Amino acid sequence: MARHIYFFGDGKADGNASMKETLGGKGAGLAEMTNIGVPVPPGFTISTAACVWYYRNGMTYPEGLDGEIATNLTRLEASVGRTFGDPARPLLVSVRSGARASMPGMMDTILNLGLNDSTVEGLAKSSGDERFAFDSYRRFITMYSDVVLGVDHEHFEHLLDEAKHAHGAKVDAELHATALRGLLARYKALVRERTGNDFPQDVREQLHGAIRAVFSSWNNQRAITYRRLNNIPDDWGTAVNVQSMVFGNMGDDCATGVAFTRNPSTGEKRFYGEFLPNAQGEDVVAGIRTPYPISKELAAEPGKSLEEMMPGVYGQLVDVYRKLESHYRDMQDIEFTIEAGRLYLLQTRTGKRTGFAAVKIAVDMVDEAMIDEREAVKRVDAGSIVQLLAPVFDAATKSKALANGRLLAKGLAAGPGAASGRVAFTAENAVDMAKGPDPVILARVETSPEDIAGMHAAAGILTSRGGLTSHAAVVARGMGKPCVVGCGAMRIDYSRKELRVEGRPPILEGDWISIDGATGEVIYDRLETRSSEVIQVLIDGSMKPEASETFRDFDRLLKWADSIRTKKVRTNADTPHDTRVAKLFGAEGIGLCRTEHMFFQEERILAVREMILARDEAGRRRALEKILPFQRSDFASMFRVLDGLPITVRLLDPPLHEFLPQTEAQISTVAREMNWGFIELRSKVSQLHEVNPMLGHRGCRLGITFPEIYEMQARAIFEAACEVSKQGIAVSPEVMIPLIGTIKEFTITRELVERTAKKVFEEKGIEVPLIVGTMIEIPRAALMAGEIAAEAAFFSFGTNDLTQMTFGYSRDDVGSFMPAYLEKKIVPRDPFESLDTEGVGQLVRLGTESGRAANPSLKVGVCGEHGGDPDSIRFFRNVGLDYVSCSPFRVPVARLAQAQAELEEVAKEA
Amino acid sequence: MARHIYFFGDGKADGNASMKETLGGKGAGLAEMTNIGVPVPPGFTISTAACVWYYRNGMTYPEGLDGEIATNLTRLEASVGRTFGDPARPLLVSVRSGARASMPGMMDTILNLGLNDSTVEGLAKSSGDERFAFDSYRRFITMYSDVVLGVDHEHFEHLLDEAKHAHGAKVDAELHATALRGLLARYKALVRERTGNDFPQDVREQLHGAIRAVFSSWNNQRAITYRRLNNIPDDWGTAVNVQSMVFGNMGDDCATGVAFTRNPSTGEKRFYGEFLPNAQGEDVVAGIRTPYPISKELAAEPGKSLEEMMPGVYGQLVDVYRKLESHYRDMQDIEFTIEAGRLYLLQTRTGKRTGFAAVKIAVDMVDEAMIDEREAVKRVDAGSIVQLLAPVFDAATKSKALANGRLLAKGLAAGPGAASGRVAFTAENAVDMAKGPDPVILARVETSPEDIAGMHAAAGILTSRGGLTSHAAVVARGMGKPCVVGCGAMRIDYSRKELRVEGRPPILEGDWISIDGATGEVIYDRLETRSSEVIQVLIDGSMKPEASETFRDFDRLLKWADSIRTKKVRTNADTPHDTRVAKLFGAEGIGLCRTEHMFFQEERILAVREMILARDEAGRRRALEKILPFQRSDFASMFRVLDGLPITVRLLDPPLHEFLPQTEAQISTVAREMNWGFIELRSKVSQLHEVNPMLGHRGCRLGITFPEIYEMQARAIFEAACEVSKQGIAVSPEVMIPLIGTIKEFTITRELVERTAKKVFEEKGIEVPLIVGTMIEIPRAALMAGEIAAEAAFFSFGTNDLTQMTFGYSRDDVGSFMPAYLEKKIVPRDPFESLDTEGVGQLVRLGTESGRAANPSLKVGVCGEHGGDPDSIRFFRNVGLDYVSCSPFRVPVARLAQAQAELEEVAKEA
Repeated sequence: MARHIYFFGDGKADGNASMKETLGGKGAGLAEMTNIGVPVPPGFTISTAACVWYYRNGMTYPEGLDGEIATNLTRLEASVGRTFGDPARPLLVSVRSGARASMPGMMDTILNLGLNDSTVEGLAKSSGDERFAFDSYRRFITMYSDVVLGVDHEHFEHLLDEAKHAHGAKVDAELHATALRGLLARYKALVRERTGNDFPQDVREQLHGAIRAVFSSWNNQRAITYRRLNNIPDDWGTAVNVQSMVFGNMGDDCATGVAFTRNPSTGEKRFYGEFLPNAQGEDVVAGIRTPYPISKELAAEPGKSLEEMMPGVYGQLVDVYRKLESHYRDMQDIEFTIEAGRLYLLQTRTGKRTGFAAVKIAVDMVDEAMIDEREAVKRVDAGSIVQLLAPVFDAATKSKALANGRLLAKGLAAGPGAASGRVAFTAENAVDMAKGPDPVILARVETSPEDIAGMHAAAGILTSRGGLTSHAAVVARGMGKPCVVGCGAMRIDYSRKELRVEGRPPILEGDWISIDGATGEVIYDRLETRSSEVIQVLIDGSMKPEASETFRDFDRLLKWADSIRTKKVRTNADTPHDTRVAKLFGAEGIGLCRTEHMFFQEERILAVREMILARDEAGRRRALEKILPFQRSDFASMFRVLDGLPITVRLLDPPLHEFLPQTEAQISTVAREMNWGFIELRSKVSQLHEVNPMLGHRGCRLGITFPEIYEMQARAIFEAACEVSKQGIAVSPEVMIPLIGTIKEFTITRELVERTAKKVFEEKGIEVPLIVGTMIEIPRAALMAGEIAAEAAFFSFGTNDLTQMTFGYSRDDVGSFMPAYLEKKIVPRDPFESLDTEGVGQLVRLGTESGRAANPSLKVGVCGEHGGDPDSIRFFRNVGLDYVSCSPFRVPVARLAQAQAELEEVAKEA
Repeated sequence: MARHIYFFGDGKADGNASMKETLGGKGAGLAEMTNIGVPVPPGFTISTAACVWYYRNGMTYPEGLDGEIATNLTRLEASVGRTFGDPARPLLVSVRSGARASMPGMMDTILNLGLNDSTVEGLAKSSGDERFAFDSYRRFITMYSDVVLGVDHEHFEHLLDEAKHAHGAKVDAELHATALRGLLARYKALVRERTGNDFPQDVREQLHGAIRAVFSSWNNQRAITYRRLNNIPDDWGTAVNVQSMVFGNMGDDCATGVAFTRNPSTGEKRFYGEFLPNAQGEDVVAGIRTPYPISKELAAEPGKSLEEMMPGVYGQLVDVYRKLESHYRDMQDIEFTIEAGRLYLLQTRTGKRTGFAAVKIAVDMVDEAMIDEREAVKRVDAGSIVQLLAPVFDAATKSKALANGRLLAKGLAAGPGAASGRVAFTAENAVDMAKGPDPVILARVETSPEDIAGMHAAAGILTSRGGLTSHAAVVARGMGKPCVVGCGAMRIDYSRKELRVEGRPPILEGDWISIDGATGEVIYDRLETRSSEVIQVLIDGSMKPEASETFRDFDRLLKWADSIRTKKVRTNADTPHDTRVAKLFGAEGIGLCRTEHMFFQEERILAVREMILARDEAGRRRALEKILPFQRSDFASMFRVLDGLPITVRLLDPPLHEFLPQTEAQISTVAREMNWGFIELRSKVSQLHEVNPMLGHRGCRLGITFPEIYEMQARAIFEAACEVSKQGIAVSPEVMIPLIGTIKEFTITRELVERTAKKVFEEKGIEVPLIVGTMIEIPRAALMAGEIAAEAAFFSFGTNDLTQMTFGYSRDDVGSFMPAYLEKKIVPRDPFESLDTEGVGQLVRLGTESGRAANPSLKVGVCGEHGGDPDSIRFFRNVGLDYVSCSPFRVPVARLAQAQAELEEVAKEA
């Protein structure tokens, strides 16, 4: 019989930090803290395996779990010196979820379990505080009824409000014991009325009910949504932590709080947290009361900090945080309770952080000799570093707005970056409005897990209540979105759909506001944003590196990554500007230059349209003659910027009708230019319509039926290359044929390119290096890769089209079913966002392996958008691709992700 | 050094019939005939390998070929008793192409080679016929100059016409020796003028020039086109036969002819051929003069047959044909020449035949104990038997047309079937007109290889000149097209674009005519066609089997095929009628029932449109309720016809907008019915538009987003199945989910179907067997087949969509590049017609193998249109598919093709 329960208490634990898979993050933290001597209330953890078993076996316990619970309960009673259900000195416990990955607020928790009509009297006596005991029982009945019995907590709150009204109490704390006793009777009557049964008095029944409820909450809708957004597998399950209660709400020598060992928003090395005196833990996380800071220097009013209010406990807490950070060698997110002046740690875990904080903490810890450079590279979520490139408000514009009195209010800066958008007051409205052209700022009194979809849709999040560890702040940080919380001056009226700050005009839904996640400012104006510090140093050159610590950290981290990674990073760029930016971000060449993007510019599109609509080859050639000088000068500029770095130029790919005139005015213009009748031209335009353009006359199919197009493009490339080469600048053109599905398509077009290049070399009296390869983006090309590789110098996987055709999904049309597919977990992630390694990945692997077998010198890369996705990059590294190519702003992400993939593989091999 | 030349003569040959790959069909036939004692002029064959080498090595001879030619020439001189280039007794030779597969008239031939200014005098003396010698030289100069020197034969014909005019000669034969001598001088002057050189006098130079020309003719445009249409690989190359000349044109005891050992159009066992007295072989094949029949009974005028004109030689010919047919055990196509009363065979090969003839000959030969039943099954080109199902003219309509005096003329019946269409006088016009809605009849004086494309486009072919072995007849037979040739009463005027028969109104291009390939009748009327005999017996029941020998042969052959094949044949059928027809053709169940085809009927489409446009699920369910009874009664009828045979029902597959109202009137009707505004509805319709519908919201994607649709369909199937089952009729429904790409799509929809079935079973109080499987038509499904097979009862490869997505070809849009792709051999055949076994085939194989590995009881079939293509069927048999499913009329093809695939495999394994 497998073991399902792990005890912790009395200075030692059955588990430890390495057992996250079994104990969940919270359970492993409790065990580890117990082991290293941090004060933790004793308790036990029911393993995730029990939860998985529960789901796989029709919601039943695994064999023996009942007995294990009983045994551990006895052990817990002994440790605490109280007995479960004992009317005199009752043991009370909390029952909390705890998965391998943090899912803040998504699953259920029950506190004060073990209270009933008789033990509540014992608690009153033993604590000497009747009001506290009754209030605890009231809270327990509310929570338990809501979570286990399915009686919505609103019903209880309604009764509570009535009682407060009846007794003239403004806040809960003003309800005296007698009033609470009466309220409890009404609570119990409500339960009887709603469920047909009395509120359970058997404390063991209470315990089992709570355990089952926590198991079940793994699959509530908001947990499912959260997992989907955070790529957490559904089959992990949650552990359940049953822990003896400590009370932060037994009086003024009690408190509860949360803290980070460093600032999770900026990474600053400063102990950073909040607490509420005389409160239970959930009060802080829920963000209902705005808490006080822990350290004196952050106190809003003198004396209002833990450091000042309980200096002894504060000292203990500082010792504990130092112990935890040096033990875990990472920034920790802790929860603590102070009961009658005694400190208890309830949780420690690696703290979530913004990209800014992740970079700074990793680099600082290297400097503090806590971790080495390889560890630092592993520490930063590769995707999160784009936050360091995200725009901030333009200083001048913002100053002007502030000078104009547009500051609405100031809240807590929950980072990162800045956002300007139209305000929405509900998650649903945010989702709807985000479908329009403008960004959306979601403004709520506080957010709750029900708001996840709206937060995802919004460009920024603003709340009037709650601290830096409130739901809004934690989730926004996870999403890398600008966020301002606890902006108490704001009153949001949901029914009127307006937001008011005394002395300011009301802000209605749809009005523009701007929030600065770095300062906490909320401005009722639409503000322009400007480059982040990293961009100012690296790209704009408007700031010196010495002036930006952020840039220096970013740069050091990426240089460490470069020293680890073994594969190249290129960029997808079609203009000299993008090429320059990408080079500054560290791109080692261009992996995809889409020549057709050059076609759309004003002065060219007319010639392009003439080319498409030409009656015959001669007409096409006349039009192509006009396009040639444009393309040649584009390529020449690119070659100059690249200064010898390779550039993969993809010949014309999209269906020709994409370039066609659409409006009647456009058709008229082209008709005049071509000397055609309007009617005739309009009919020709409609004749070029395709039923499924994605699978139609495009890519090399155009190059074969109209070879003069590819001939012109090849000529433009090589004329430019020769010209630049004559100026003493090295050039390295790689011509890529798109949409190859058969070997003959490749050999025919390759010969055309080579023949044209040779002609140009003869005309110019100079030769430049030349290689011709192909995109692998059609399933058949991957299947026939061996044959094709024997003739090709390189492969570049076009994973966008390969995904479209392997799944049979049109990227333009998936909107009608993809949301349902993600919801139902039919696909784990959108396959256009992160490569489907199981299916499409088979073709990438097969294509690479059979290609290399036929041609050992074959260069293989990827130029689909997956080239900038860390999970996909890991897969490409493991398949052995020589490089990934991604958009310029994803180049740093790719550098970091490649290094991480390398470290993972090295670890696996070791 | 490999041997390149094989000699034949003096009663024995270096080669034999089994060496077709090396010697080509003609060379192997000449060798074999020599070996079995048939009189053949001696000669030698240069192997196909030499031709392949020639192409692979920049048009040069392989090493040693020169020497081998010299050696064999010496041997030939000894055999014939004449010397090449000898002024006294010159050896003359023919140089002919001869590939593995017959390519009639596609490549070049040169006769009378070895003649020059001096040997022509020797020929005159040794033959005692000066006119004959000069005429032979004239012919040789024309042919050689045309083929080798590139001087078009028209220039020579122009000079010939001038000479005839000058000498008052009506036909060539009236030009006397002196006139010819003068003409020869003008011919040689023409050559000098056009080429800058004298006509070659060195006979060895002539020989090498001719050999190179024959090699080169393998790649002339018409040969390439012919190979493409007939699926002959480009890399086979041609052999070259150098053979001593015999002359059918040396006087009235000379003749040349061609014959079939049985009738190639009907299969009738009757020696069947034509000859021209005093002519060279090319005159017959070219169809310029209408020849006489060989046997007396077919003579148009008394005395005008070989039997009557040369009874001795006729007797020899009959002996030879019996010897050849019993030797080859198949119908032979022979060419012969009679020189001075002596018979020489110049060629024998297996004769091309119509589907009718193929079936009859195969069955007859079994009855004659020449071959066994297995051999008979191998003998019939599986695709050709659809000819036996092709319509013929309705007897009553035709009688009426004849009674009305609409018979235009009568020609030779070159079979098979009948056709009615608009007449076209050039191949180009036939191709153009065939793009319109009506069929086209190509009418020509005679056809030539340049007309191939027009013949392919036409529904029937008519010529005014030429016999049953003329180009038109041979090619039409190969294509299985109705054909009437040698209709001498017709005069076609190309310049006026009209066809005239004395006493009848002129027929202009575009007028309707009808031709009966079974009777030779040409009728100037549009005639209705009616069922063939096989259809009358099998489907219509309007003819008794005893009355139709064709039916009985067809039936016997297919029953032999059934006893050989090990895999099943199902049909794609959506209506009870098609199901009944397919069963009569031998279908063993339905492999694909497309439920959406049931949606289009008048009274249903409105409900379908309501369903699609419904505002919500409730609206959809209301509309589905209306559709349910229709679907249920459709399925009930199908079950009754099937009587226990399995039926694979595919749930709704196409994108919903395919069913949408298109015209304003249709939109109005639906708007009224649904009580919507017109504008609102039109906007909803346009909102459902997709960019790439093939890759859009269709198949199981609909079933998942709108489960009520699949639920209704499952209900209809099972309600019908229960109803029919209660009547004591066995039912075997197999529900197929379309467009599966992920395992979850399958499990979700399978559960929906099973849940619905269970509900219906409970309601009806009866259960029927039920299995659920999936189509494999998305590349990812084939890649993930193992995972999917673990949950599915069967796979059916949807090779149409699988081909679309694996190639990235939209079937609706390939028209813009597929012709160029076939032309350039980028794809060997249209992949929608015959499965791409190399690429798409990999996915079929992978899907089958990994599916079976995961689920050994998995049933696997195919339901794309490839299920009726013999080459594809062979592939499916070899991959191990349990069945193919094809359209009802292809069921007999599939039965035969499966048996043939089986026999091939057995032969390979042996």
